[in-house]
Amino acid sequence: MGEVSSVSPFAPAALVSLPPIDGVAFATAEAGIRYKGRTDLLLAVLDEGTSVAGVLTQSKTASAPVLICRKHLKKGSARAIVVNSGNANAFTGKRGREAVDITVERAVEAVGCKPHEVFVASTGVIGEPLDAGKFAHLLTELAGRAESDAFDKAARAIMTTDTYPKLATRTALIGDTEVTINGFCKGAGMIAPDMATMLCFIFTDAAISAEALQALITQHAQTTFNCMTVDGDTSTSDTCLIFATGRAAARGQKPVIKAKSKKLQAFSDALHDLMRDLAIQVAKDGEGLSKFVTFEVAGAKSWSAARKIGLACANSPILKTAIAGEDPNWGRVVMAVGKSGEAANRDKLTIWFGPHCVARNGERAEEYDEKTAAAYMKNSDILIRIDAGVGNAAATVWTCDLTHAYISINADYRS
Amino acid sequence: MGEVSSVSPFAPAALVSLPPIDGVAFATAEAGIRYKGRTDLLLAVLDEGTSVAGVLTQSKTASAPVLICRKHLKKGSARAIVVNSGNANAFTGKRGREAVDITVERAVEAVGCKPHEVFVASTGVIGEPLDAGKFAHLLTELAGRAESDAFDKAARAIMTTDTYPKLATRTALIGDTEVTINGFCKGAGMIAPDMATMLCFIFTDAAISAEALQALITQHAQTTFNCMTVDGDTSTSDTCLIFATGRAAARGQKPVIKAKSKKLQAFSDALHDLMRDLAIQVAKDGEGLSKFVTFEVAGAKSWSAARKIGLACANSPILKTAIAGEDPNWGRVVMAVGKSGEAANRDKLTIWFGPHCVARNGERAEEYDEKTAAAYMKNSDILIRIDAGVGNAAATVWTCDLTHAYISINADYRS
Repeated sequence: MGEVSSVSPFAPAALVSLPPIDGVAFATAEAGIRYKGRTDLLLAVLDEGTSVAGVLTQSKTASAPVLICRKHLKKGSARAIVVNSGNANAFTGKRGREAVDITVERAVEAVGCKPHEVFVASTGVIGEPLDAGKFAHLLTELAGRAESDAFDKAARAIMTTDTYPKLATRTALIGDTEVTINGFCKGAGMIAPDMATMLCFIFTDAAISAEALQALITQHAQTTFNCMTVDGDTSTSDTCLIFATGRAAARGQKPVIKAKSKKLQAFSDALHDLMRDLAIQVAKDGEGLSKFVTFEVAGAKSWSAARKIGLACANSPILKTAIAGEDPNWGRVVMAVGKSGEAANRDKLTIWFGPHCVARNGERAEEYDEKTAAAYMKNSDILIRIDAGVGNAAATVWTCDLTHAYISINADYRS
Repeated sequence: MGEVSSVSPFAPAALVSLPPIDGVAFATAEAGIRYKGRTDLLLAVLDEGTSVAGVLTQSKTASAPVLICRKHLKKGSARAIVVNSGNANAFTGKRGREAVDITVERAVEAVGCKPHEVFVASTGVIGEPLDAGKFAHLLTELAGRAESDAFDKAARAIMTTDTYPKLATRTALIGDTEVTINGFCKGAGMIAPDMATMLCFIFTDAAISAEALQALITQHAQTTFNCMTVDGDTSTSDTCLIFATGRAAARGQKPVIKAKSKKLQAFSDALHDLMRDLAIQVAKDGEGLSKFVTFEVAGAKSWSAARKIGLACANSPILKTAIAGEDPNWGRVVMAVGKSGEAANRDKLTIWFGPHCVARNGERAEEYDEKTAAAYMKNSDILIRIDAGVGNAAATVWTCDLTHAYISINADYRS
């Protein structure tokens, strides 16, 4: 703990290389919206026929871009995505809606599509008016030079306090045709998903209807992004969108219309795996973290009860701080389970720190050894398992510890 | 921010002096349960005829002392209270229950009462077996030297990470008789009341039935301790008990049996005021705080909705850290209102930092001036007012900021 390090200790040594996806191209620019000397504007251009689905923040103070995405998702088709970082365009009233309208208009001109085919996302400071004049005029030029092999550049342009871009890729068979799924996302603070989380964009060349995509992304968000938290704070801007260009149809993939089609199983599994990968990458870049922490909760009455117990642990400042201090303070796990409000049998509750059982049947485990437990806490990757002792359901929640660096980062975010 | 200061900046220059309460006497001792060189054991001796009521933690992993208090409260009479600090006797299984049983037995011998007239509270580390042998044998000696003028000593003996003892006193008329109410409490971290909070003991010489006391304390806990939070973490040990010795009857007070008696109005008001005072004292000693923060929420649909919005703000790490950094980051207030899940009209939401309106009708206020707002944030006492724009209900929530010192205190609490 201590100094704010410039990069998360979990930053990958080398970024995953994402293959191009047929029908998707990106261009980025330095629009100077807030940051200097880095890209802060992303345009994604999608081929005609691209279907789209998504999940958005449940915040009651959702941003203007979230509202336009919610509206456009109803039509199910996409041709352009415009994302800016540095300003969330949230709580910006009429001017915020106007900034979105201008952005959509310019994207329509740049790409040659209908307004409802444009999706907009903004991330950064809340409440500061966003001047679309700073970047909307750049979109035509960006459309002209969009390139397919640019996922890493795209991921970088949408970062805020992230210390590394978050990228993942998978393949899956639909029938006999191999399709690709690429995704990238941003997020490091104000992370406590409530439906979707942060900004996340997923692309595939598969031919899948918007309706089927929607069913998949709603289902998988629950057990991936919605099981991850940095600080318990849900953003006004959470946006997770998936785009399917359908270009794999040219290679013989028969388009899938229904979410329940058995042909989608491998794709669904691969998508879940990719979203889980990205969710973990976000937790591993949690603001100021020194440790990545996984809570595996079993023995609960339902999946949602298990998740709630896990989140009560993952959002407990006093427990997260103990983890930062490498203190095997399992009493704070007991506290967090207790405050979750979910059923747990105090006298059957069992807790493990890594492989070490620290508490069993309502009291300290006989084999508990403070030195062994303390040594385990030196790891940078901490697994805490909890058996609530009342049922058979399980859930996994990912988070990070709470350190001095989190305080330093957030005490002067705007200055 | 920065160093862990030894004392809260809000510690009173001089402690409030509490008058003796007829029928109440205290003795403390250094039992060496965990701390060295300070008192950690309190015995309160109550006259025959003392009625008792209380509210206890809603945690699903409540401590052994909480369970015994819950049981004994059903009988409504009290003669002794035994409190230790340094060990919470929570999640200590069968041995925890045995430690409570031994404590009750020894108190029965020391005071000469029935087992159900003994109340026990423990605060400190969770999960560590409590050795009642360390202190139970001291109770007879303590009973022999209990004195009435010792509220400050009593308050000190129950402290853990508190930097000052928390005391308050009020008087009220019941009929023509003036009665006194004294209270003290402890708490600084793991503070997010869920019914009662922390340890709090209130004493009065009034003659009031246990049933009436119960109604009063349940009602007032809601708008006092349950509207205060340090870190959103609910303790396993929360205990708030009120004892009425009835000795004012000797001075002519006619005993009050029914909670709804109009004669209790002044007493009820004074009790509420005392509990509010103590709740604020806890927030003002929040671990590592540099600022005391009040959220006044109005324009909500119900009191509980207003409280939930206030608590969403008061428990937001990212907002509390901005306050520590003296950043008037009202966008984070918008975020917290949004994540509360309670109804709020984004386009009518209005926010003030002290006297300065920073946001009105869903966007930054026209008169907003960053310099003025930043200057206000230099205060140590911060008032944030929120109008949710959907109704007429209001609630007030108290908390503190989140600083480096909180991290330092909780990273190595057990070491």
